[in-house]
Amino acid sequence: MKSTTEYLWFNTEKHREFINITRNVEDIVKQSGITEGFVLVSAMHITAGVYVNDAESGLIADIEEWLENLAPYRLDYRHHATGESNGDSHLKSLLIHHEVIVPITNKSLDLGPWQQVYYAEFDGQRKKRVIIKAIGE
Amino acid sequence: MKSTTEYLWFNTEKHREFINITRNVEDIVKQSGITEGFVLVSAMHITAGVYVNDAESGLIADIEEWLENLAPYRLDYRHHATGESNGDSHLKSLLIHHEVIVPITNKSLDLGPWQQVYYAEFDGQRKKRVIIKAIGE
Amino acid sequence: MKSTTEYLWFNTEKHREFINITRNVEDIVKQSGITEGFVLVSAMHITAGVYVNDAESGLIADIEEWLENLAPYRLDYRHHATGESNGDSHLKSLLIHHEVIVPITNKSLDLGPWQQVYYAEFDGQRKKRVIIKAIGE
Repeated sequence: MKSTTEYLWFNTEKHREFINITRNVEDIVKQSGITEGFVLVSAMHITAGVYVNDAESGLIADIEEWLENLAPYRLDYRHHATGESNGDSHLKSLLIHHEVIVPITNKSLDLGPWQQVYYAEFDGQRKKRVIIKAIGE
Repeated sequence: MKSTTEYLWFNTEKHREFINITRNVEDIVKQSGITEGFVLVSAMHITAGVYVNDAESGLIADIEEWLENLAPYRLDYRHHATGESNGDSHLKSLLIHHEVIVPITNKSLDLGPWQQVYYAEFDGQRKKRVIIKAIGE
Repeated sequence: MKSTTEYLWFNTEKHREFINITRNVEDIVKQSGITEGFVLVSAMHITAGVYVNDAESGLIADIEEWLENLAPYRLDYRHHATGESNGDSHLKSLLIHHEVIVPITNKSLDLGPWQQVYYAEFDGQRKKRVIIKAIGE
Protein backbone atom coordinates (compact mmCIF):
# COMPACT_ATOMS: atom_id res chain seq x y z
CA MET A 1 0.00 0.00 0.00
CA LYS A 2 1.12 3.54 -0.78
CA SER A 3 0.07 6.68 1.05
CA THR A 4 0.71 10.40 0.81
CA THR A 5 -0.23 13.26 3.16
CA GLU A 6 -0.17 16.96 2.32
CA TYR A 7 -1.63 20.05 3.98
CA LEU A 8 -2.97 23.13 2.20
CA TRP A 9 -2.89 26.41 4.13
CA PHE A 10 -5.44 29.18 3.61
CA ASN A 11 -5.67 32.72 4.96
CA THR A 12 -8.60 34.24 3.11
CA GLU A 13 -9.07 37.96 2.62
CA LYS A 14 -12.79 37.77 3.31
CA HIS A 15 -14.75 36.29 6.18
CA ARG A 16 -16.32 33.81 3.76
CA GLU A 17 -14.81 32.41 0.59
CA PHE A 18 -15.30 29.47 -1.75
CA ILE A 19 -12.05 28.23 -3.29
CA ASN A 20 -11.75 25.61 -6.03
CA ILE A 21 -8.98 23.21 -4.92
CA THR A 22 -9.50 20.48 -7.52
CA ARG A 23 -6.16 21.18 -9.21
CA ASN A 24 -4.29 21.04 -5.88
CA VAL A 25 -5.84 17.66 -5.07
CA GLU A 26 -5.07 16.35 -8.53
CA ASP A 27 -1.43 17.45 -8.37
CA ILE A 28 -0.93 15.72 -5.02
CA VAL A 29 -2.49 12.52 -6.38
CA LYS A 30 -0.26 12.61 -9.50
CA GLN A 31 2.86 13.02 -7.35
CA SER A 32 1.84 10.17 -5.04
CA GLY A 33 2.25 7.48 -7.70
CA ILE A 34 -1.06 5.94 -6.58
CA THR A 35 -2.90 4.25 -9.45
CA GLU A 36 -6.04 3.01 -7.64
CA GLY A 37 -7.27 4.32 -4.29
CA PHE A 38 -9.07 7.04 -2.35
CA VAL A 39 -8.08 10.61 -1.54
CA LEU A 40 -9.58 12.28 1.52
CA VAL A 41 -9.93 16.08 1.43
CA SER A 42 -10.87 17.28 4.90
CA ALA A 43 -10.97 20.67 6.62
CA MET A 44 -8.95 20.62 9.87
CA HIS A 45 -11.05 23.40 11.40
CA ILE A 46 -14.61 23.35 12.67
CA THR A 47 -15.77 26.50 10.89
CA ALA A 48 -14.92 25.46 7.32
CA GLY A 49 -16.14 22.81 4.90
CA VAL A 50 -15.16 20.79 1.86
CA TYR A 51 -17.70 19.79 -0.76
CA VAL A 52 -18.00 18.67 -4.39
CA ASN A 53 -20.18 20.64 -6.79
CA ASP A 54 -20.18 23.01 -9.76
CA ALA A 55 -17.61 25.76 -10.55
CA GLU A 56 -20.32 28.26 -11.53
CA SER A 57 -20.27 31.65 -9.84
CA GLY A 58 -24.06 32.12 -9.80
CA LEU A 59 -24.52 28.77 -8.13
CA ILE A 60 -21.80 29.53 -5.59
CA ALA A 61 -23.66 32.75 -4.65
CA ASP A 62 -26.86 30.68 -4.37
CA ILE A 63 -25.08 28.20 -2.07
CA GLU A 64 -23.80 31.02 0.14
CA GLU A 65 -27.28 32.57 0.43
CA TRP A 66 -28.84 29.16 1.11
CA LEU A 67 -26.33 28.42 3.89
CA GLU A 68 -27.04 31.84 5.43
CA ASN A 69 -30.79 31.12 5.34
CA LEU A 70 -30.48 27.70 7.01
CA ALA A 71 -27.63 28.52 9.40
CA PRO A 72 -27.90 32.28 9.90
CA TYR A 73 -25.50 34.66 11.58
CA ARG A 74 -27.04 35.49 14.95
CA LEU A 75 -25.81 37.20 18.08
CA ASP A 76 -27.58 34.92 20.53
CA TYR A 77 -25.97 31.51 20.01
CA ARG A 78 -25.04 29.92 23.34
CA HIS A 79 -21.56 29.33 21.94
CA HIS A 80 -20.97 33.08 22.10
CA ALA A 81 -20.80 32.94 25.89
CA THR A 82 -17.22 31.71 25.29
CA GLY A 83 -16.37 35.05 23.67
CA GLU A 84 -16.69 33.71 20.11
CA SER A 85 -19.07 35.21 17.53
CA ASN A 86 -18.90 32.40 14.95
CA GLY A 87 -21.74 30.08 15.98
CA ASP A 88 -23.18 30.31 12.46
CA SER A 89 -19.82 29.26 10.97
CA HIS A 90 -19.94 25.99 12.93
CA LEU A 91 -23.49 25.27 11.74
CA LYS A 92 -22.64 26.09 8.12
CA SER A 93 -19.69 23.68 8.37
CA LEU A 94 -21.96 20.91 9.66
CA LEU A 95 -24.52 21.57 6.91
CA ILE A 96 -22.08 21.47 3.98
CA HIS A 97 -19.93 18.81 5.71
CA HIS A 98 -16.21 19.08 6.36
CA GLU A 99 -14.80 16.40 4.07
CA VAL A 100 -15.10 14.37 0.89
CA ILE A 101 -13.52 11.22 -0.47
CA VAL A 102 -12.59 11.34 -4.16
CA PRO A 103 -11.87 8.04 -5.92
CA ILE A 104 -8.53 7.65 -7.75
CA THR A 105 -8.72 5.54 -10.91
CA ASN A 106 -5.84 5.07 -13.33
CA LYS A 107 -3.77 7.76 -11.51
CA SER A 108 -6.46 10.48 -11.83
CA LEU A 109 -9.35 11.87 -9.81
CA ASP A 110 -12.39 9.87 -10.95
CA LEU A 111 -14.83 12.80 -10.95
CA GLY A 112 -17.89 13.36 -13.12
CA PRO A 113 -17.80 16.02 -15.85
CA TRP A 114 -18.91 18.93 -13.63
CA GLN A 115 -17.61 17.81 -10.25
CA GLN A 116 -15.10 20.16 -8.62
CA VAL A 117 -13.69 20.07 -5.09
CA TYR A 118 -14.30 23.25 -3.08
CA TYR A 119 -12.91 24.60 0.18
CA ALA A 120 -15.63 26.65 1.90
CA GLU A 121 -14.31 29.15 4.43
CA PHE A 122 -16.94 30.37 6.92
CA ASP A 123 -14.66 32.19 9.38
CA GLY A 124 -11.61 33.37 7.50
CA GLN A 125 -8.95 36.04 7.78
CA ARG A 126 -6.78 33.67 9.79
CA LYS A 127 -4.51 30.70 8.98
CA LYS A 128 -6.41 27.46 8.43
CA ARG A 129 -5.56 24.06 7.03
CA VAL A 130 -6.96 21.27 4.86
CA ILE A 131 -5.51 17.76 4.89
CA ILE A 132 -5.24 15.86 1.62
CA LYS A 133 -4.42 12.23 2.28
CA ALA A 134 -4.42 9.48 -0.34
CA ILE A 135 -4.07 5.73 0.14
CA GLY A 136 -3.95 3.06 -2.52
CA GLU A 137 -1.62 1.02 -4.64
CA MET B 1 -4.18 -4.36 -1.79
CA LYS B 2 -7.13 -5.19 -4.02
CA SER B 3 -9.43 -2.70 -5.73
CA THR B 4 -12.46 -2.79 -7.96
CA THR B 5 -14.27 0.00 -9.82
CA GLU B 6 -17.73 -0.20 -11.36
CA TYR B 7 -20.20 2.39 -12.65
CA LEU B 8 -23.98 2.20 -12.39
CA TRP B 9 -25.97 4.12 -15.01
CA PHE B 10 -29.40 5.62 -14.33
CA ASN B 11 -31.93 7.29 -16.58
CA THR B 12 -34.96 7.80 -14.37
CA GLU B 13 -38.51 8.19 -15.70
CA LYS B 14 -39.32 10.93 -13.24
CA HIS B 15 -37.55 14.19 -12.40
CA ARG B 16 -36.94 12.91 -8.87
CA GLU B 17 -36.51 9.31 -7.78
CA PHE B 18 -35.11 7.40 -4.83
CA ILE B 19 -33.58 4.04 -5.84
CA ASN B 20 -32.35 1.35 -3.44
CA ILE B 21 -28.94 0.24 -4.76
CA THR B 22 -27.82 -1.86 -1.78
CA ARG B 23 -27.97 -5.10 -3.75
CA ASN B 24 -25.88 -3.63 -6.59
CA VAL B 25 -23.20 -2.50 -4.14
CA GLU B 26 -23.22 -5.87 -2.40
CA ASP B 27 -22.87 -7.79 -5.68
CA ILE B 28 -19.88 -5.69 -6.73
CA VAL B 29 -18.23 -6.25 -3.34
CA LYS B 30 -18.81 -10.02 -3.55
CA GLN B 31 -17.24 -10.16 -7.01
CA SER B 32 -14.22 -8.10 -5.90
CA GLY B 33 -12.86 -10.80 -3.61
CA ILE B 34 -12.22 -8.14 -0.96
CA THR B 35 -12.55 -9.50 2.59
CA GLU B 36 -11.83 -6.35 4.64
CA GLY B 37 -12.02 -2.81 3.30
CA PHE B 38 -14.16 0.17 2.30
CA VAL B 39 -16.54 0.68 -0.60
CA LEU B 40 -17.24 4.22 -1.80
CA VAL B 41 -20.62 4.86 -3.43
CA SER B 42 -20.57 8.33 -4.98
CA ALA B 43 -22.79 10.19 -7.43
CA MET B 44 -20.77 11.52 -10.39
CA HIS B 45 -23.23 14.36 -10.99
CA ILE B 46 -23.86 17.49 -8.99
CA THR B 47 -27.65 17.21 -8.92
CA ALA B 48 -27.91 13.75 -7.33
CA GLY B 49 -27.05 12.24 -3.97
CA VAL B 50 -26.22 8.97 -2.24
CA TYR B 51 -27.28 8.31 1.34
CA VAL B 52 -27.88 5.49 3.83
CA ASN B 53 -31.25 5.20 5.53
CA ASP B 54 -34.47 3.18 5.73
CA ALA B 55 -36.26 1.37 2.87
CA GLU B 56 -39.70 2.55 4.02
CA SER B 57 -41.90 4.29 1.46
CA GLY B 58 -43.55 6.69 3.94
CA LEU B 59 -40.17 7.84 5.20
CA ILE B 60 -38.90 8.29 1.64
CA ALA B 61 -41.88 10.57 0.92
CA ASP B 62 -41.08 12.46 4.16
CA ILE B 63 -37.45 12.85 3.05
CA GLU B 64 -38.53 14.20 -0.35
CA GLU B 65 -40.89 16.73 1.24
CA TRP B 66 -38.25 17.76 3.78
CA LEU B 67 -35.66 18.34 1.04
CA GLU B 68 -38.17 20.42 -0.90
CA ASN B 69 -38.86 22.53 2.21
CA LEU B 70 -35.18 23.19 2.95
CA ALA B 71 -33.95 23.46 -0.67
CA PRO B 72 -37.05 24.52 -2.61
CA TYR B 73 -37.59 24.72 -6.33
CA ARG B 74 -37.46 28.41 -7.23
CA LEU B 75 -37.25 30.35 -10.46
CA ASP B 76 -34.90 33.04 -9.16
CA TYR B 77 -31.69 31.19 -8.35
CA ARG B 78 -28.68 33.05 -9.78
CA HIS B 79 -27.57 29.76 -11.34
CA HIS B 80 -30.51 30.03 -13.74
CA ALA B 81 -28.80 32.90 -15.57
CA THR B 82 -26.80 30.11 -17.25
CA GLY B 83 -30.00 28.76 -18.81
CA GLU B 84 -30.39 25.99 -16.23
CA SER B 85 -33.51 25.58 -14.06
CA ASN B 86 -32.10 23.09 -11.56
CA GLY B 87 -30.67 25.30 -8.80
CA ASP B 88 -32.75 23.43 -6.22
CA SER B 89 -31.33 20.09 -7.43
CA HIS B 90 -27.80 21.27 -6.59
CA LEU B 91 -28.85 22.38 -3.10
CA LYS B 92 -30.73 19.12 -2.44
CA SER B 93 -27.59 17.22 -3.46
CA LEU B 94 -25.47 19.24 -1.03
CA LEU B 95 -27.99 18.71 1.77
CA ILE B 96 -28.26 14.92 1.44
CA HIS B 97 -24.57 14.62 0.41
CA HIS B 98 -23.31 12.92 -2.72
CA GLU B 99 -21.47 9.92 -1.31
CA VAL B 100 -21.12 7.33 1.42
CA ILE B 101 -18.45 4.88 2.52
CA VAL B 102 -19.72 1.44 3.51
CA PRO B 103 -17.38 -0.83 5.51
CA ILE B 104 -16.66 -4.31 4.14
CA THR B 105 -16.18 -6.98 6.83
CA ASN B 106 -15.79 -10.67 6.12
CA LYS B 107 -16.64 -10.13 2.41
CA SER B 108 -20.00 -8.41 3.11
CA LEU B 109 -21.36 -4.88 3.57
CA ASP B 110 -21.14 -4.22 7.31
CA LEU B 111 -24.45 -2.35 7.59
CA GLY B 112 -26.81 -2.14 10.55
CA PRO B 113 -30.15 -3.98 10.42
CA TRP B 114 -32.10 -1.18 8.70
CA GLN B 115 -29.37 0.55 6.73
CA GLN B 116 -29.88 0.62 2.97
CA VAL B 117 -27.90 2.53 0.33
CA TYR B 118 -30.01 4.90 -1.78
CA TYR B 119 -29.39 6.81 -4.99
CA ALA B 120 -31.35 10.07 -4.87
CA GLU B 121 -32.02 11.61 -8.27
CA PHE B 122 -32.94 15.30 -8.17
CA ASP B 123 -32.73 16.12 -11.90
CA GLY B 124 -33.46 12.95 -13.83
CA GLN B 125 -34.76 11.92 -17.23
CA ARG B 126 -31.18 11.88 -18.51
CA LYS B 127 -28.23 9.46 -18.29
CA LYS B 128 -26.32 9.75 -15.02
CA ARG B 129 -23.70 7.68 -13.26
CA VAL B 130 -22.67 6.46 -9.81
CA ILE B 131 -19.17 5.14 -9.10
CA ILE B 132 -18.78 2.16 -6.80
CA LYS B 133 -15.15 1.69 -5.85
CA ALA B 134 -13.85 -0.74 -3.25
CA ILE B 135 -10.37 -1.06 -1.82
CA GLY B 136 -9.10 -3.57 0.72
CA GLU B 137 -7.45 -6.93 1.05
CA MET C 1 -2.56 -3.84 4.27
CA LYS C 2 -3.75 -3.94 7.87
CA SER C 3 -7.31 -3.56 9.06
CA THR C 4 -9.16 -3.51 12.36
CA THR C 5 -12.89 -3.50 13.14
CA GLU C 6 -14.51 -2.64 16.46
CA TYR C 7 -18.04 -1.83 17.54
CA LEU C 8 -19.07 0.63 20.25
CA TRP C 9 -22.42 0.03 21.95
CA PHE C 10 -24.57 2.82 23.35
CA ASN C 11 -27.75 2.81 25.40
CA THR C 12 -28.32 6.44 26.29
CA GLU C 13 -30.36 7.57 29.28
CA LYS C 14 -32.00 10.38 27.33
CA HIS C 15 -33.86 10.40 24.00
CA ARG C 16 -31.14 12.64 22.55
CA GLU C 17 -27.48 12.76 23.55
CA PHE C 18 -24.19 13.97 22.13
CA ILE C 19 -21.23 11.82 23.19
CA ASN C 20 -17.56 12.61 22.54
CA ILE C 21 -15.99 9.36 21.24
CA THR C 22 -12.63 10.76 20.11
CA ARG C 23 -10.72 8.85 22.79
CA ASN C 24 -12.40 5.56 21.86
CA VAL C 25 -11.47 6.02 18.19
CA GLU C 26 -7.92 6.95 19.10
CA ASP C 27 -7.48 3.91 21.36
CA ILE C 28 -8.68 1.56 18.62
CA VAL C 29 -6.30 3.14 16.12
CA LYS C 30 -3.37 2.85 18.55
CA GLN C 31 -4.10 -0.85 19.11
CA SER C 32 -4.42 -1.52 15.37
CA GLY C 33 -0.74 -0.90 14.67
CA ILE C 34 -1.72 1.15 11.61
CA THR C 35 0.76 3.96 10.87
CA GLU C 36 -0.87 5.56 7.81
CA GLY C 37 -4.49 5.08 6.77
CA PHE C 38 -8.13 5.98 7.28
CA VAL C 39 -10.54 5.20 10.10
CA LEU C 40 -14.27 5.16 9.38
CA VAL C 41 -16.60 6.00 12.27
CA SER C 42 -20.16 5.21 11.21
CA ALA C 43 -23.48 4.87 13.01
CA MET C 44 -25.13 1.50 12.27
CA HIS C 45 -28.61 2.88 12.91
CA ILE C 46 -30.69 5.26 10.84
CA THR C 47 -31.69 7.57 13.67
CA ALA C 48 -28.19 8.51 14.87
CA GLY C 49 -25.27 10.44 13.44
CA VAL C 50 -21.51 10.86 13.67
CA TYR C 51 -19.86 14.23 13.09
CA VAL C 52 -16.66 16.18 13.80
CA ASN C 53 -16.86 19.52 15.58
CA ASP C 54 -16.14 21.33 18.84
CA ALA C 55 -16.36 19.92 22.40
CA GLU C 56 -18.06 23.07 23.74
CA SER C 57 -21.31 22.61 25.65
CA GLY C 58 -22.90 25.87 24.47
CA LEU C 59 -22.25 24.97 20.85
CA ILE C 60 -23.63 21.47 21.37
CA ALA C 61 -26.87 23.01 22.70
CA ASP C 62 -26.91 25.31 19.65
CA ILE C 63 -26.47 22.31 17.35
CA GLU C 64 -29.34 20.47 19.05
CA GLU C 65 -31.66 23.49 18.73
CA TRP C 66 -30.63 24.02 15.11
CA LEU C 67 -31.35 20.38 14.22
CA GLU C 68 -34.75 20.65 15.90
CA ASN C 69 -35.53 23.78 13.87
CA LEU C 70 -34.56 22.24 10.53
CA ALA C 71 -35.83 18.70 11.19
CA PRO C 72 -38.55 19.17 13.81
CA TYR C 73 -40.40 16.60 15.85
CA ARG C 74 -43.84 16.31 14.31
CA LEU C 75 -46.73 13.90 14.69
CA ASP C 76 -47.73 13.86 11.03
CA TYR C 77 -44.74 12.30 9.25
CA ARG C 78 -45.89 9.62 6.82
CA HIS C 79 -43.34 7.28 8.40
CA HIS C 80 -45.51 7.19 11.51
CA ALA C 81 -48.14 5.11 9.69
CA THR C 82 -45.75 2.21 10.44
CA GLY C 83 -46.30 2.74 14.18
CA GLU C 84 -43.03 4.63 14.66
CA SER C 85 -42.86 8.16 16.08
CA ASN C 86 -39.25 8.97 15.16
CA GLY C 87 -39.56 10.56 11.71
CA ASP C 88 -37.62 13.58 12.95
CA SER C 89 -34.78 11.34 14.19
CA HIS C 90 -34.27 10.03 10.64
CA LEU C 91 -34.17 13.56 9.20
CA LYS C 92 -31.75 14.77 11.89
CA SER C 93 -29.49 11.81 11.06
CA LEU C 94 -29.53 12.73 7.36
CA LEU C 95 -28.78 16.38 8.15
CA ILE C 96 -25.79 15.78 10.42
CA HIS C 97 -24.70 12.71 8.37
CA HIS C 98 -24.10 9.25 9.80
CA GLU C 99 -20.35 8.87 9.33
CA VAL C 100 -16.93 10.46 9.09
CA ILE C 101 -13.50 9.37 7.89
CA VAL C 102 -10.60 10.47 10.09
CA PRO C 103 -7.09 10.31 8.62
CA ILE C 104 -4.41 8.35 10.50
CA THR C 105 -0.91 9.83 10.25
CA ASN C 106 2.10 8.53 12.17
CA LYS C 107 -0.15 6.20 14.25
CA SER C 108 -2.47 9.02 15.48
CA LEU C 109 -5.74 10.65 14.46
CA ASP C 110 -4.73 13.55 12.21
CA LEU C 111 -7.31 16.02 13.52
CA GLY C 112 -7.11 19.79 13.75
CA PRO C 113 -6.71 21.46 17.16
CA TRP C 114 -10.44 21.67 17.96
CA GLN C 115 -11.78 18.70 16.04
CA GLN C 116 -13.53 16.05 18.13
CA VAL C 117 -15.57 13.04 16.95
CA TYR C 118 -19.14 12.97 18.26
CA TYR C 119 -21.84 10.32 18.35
CA ALA C 120 -25.23 12.04 18.06
CA GLU C 121 -28.13 9.97 19.38
CA PHE C 122 -31.54 11.10 18.12
CA ASP C 123 -33.66 8.15 19.31
CA GLY C 124 -31.99 6.66 22.35
CA GLN C 125 -32.90 4.62 25.40
CA ARG C 126 -32.19 1.44 23.44
CA LYS C 127 -29.05 -0.48 22.42
CA LYS C 128 -27.34 0.97 19.36
CA ARG C 129 -23.99 0.51 17.68
CA VAL C 130 -21.22 2.43 15.94
CA ILE C 131 -18.64 0.70 13.74
CA ILE C 132 -15.03 1.88 13.89
CA LYS C 133 -13.04 0.37 11.05
CA ALA C 134 -9.50 1.32 10.12
CA ILE C 135 -7.46 0.30 7.08
CA GLY C 136 -3.88 1.21 6.27
CA GLU C 137 -0.34 0.03 6.60
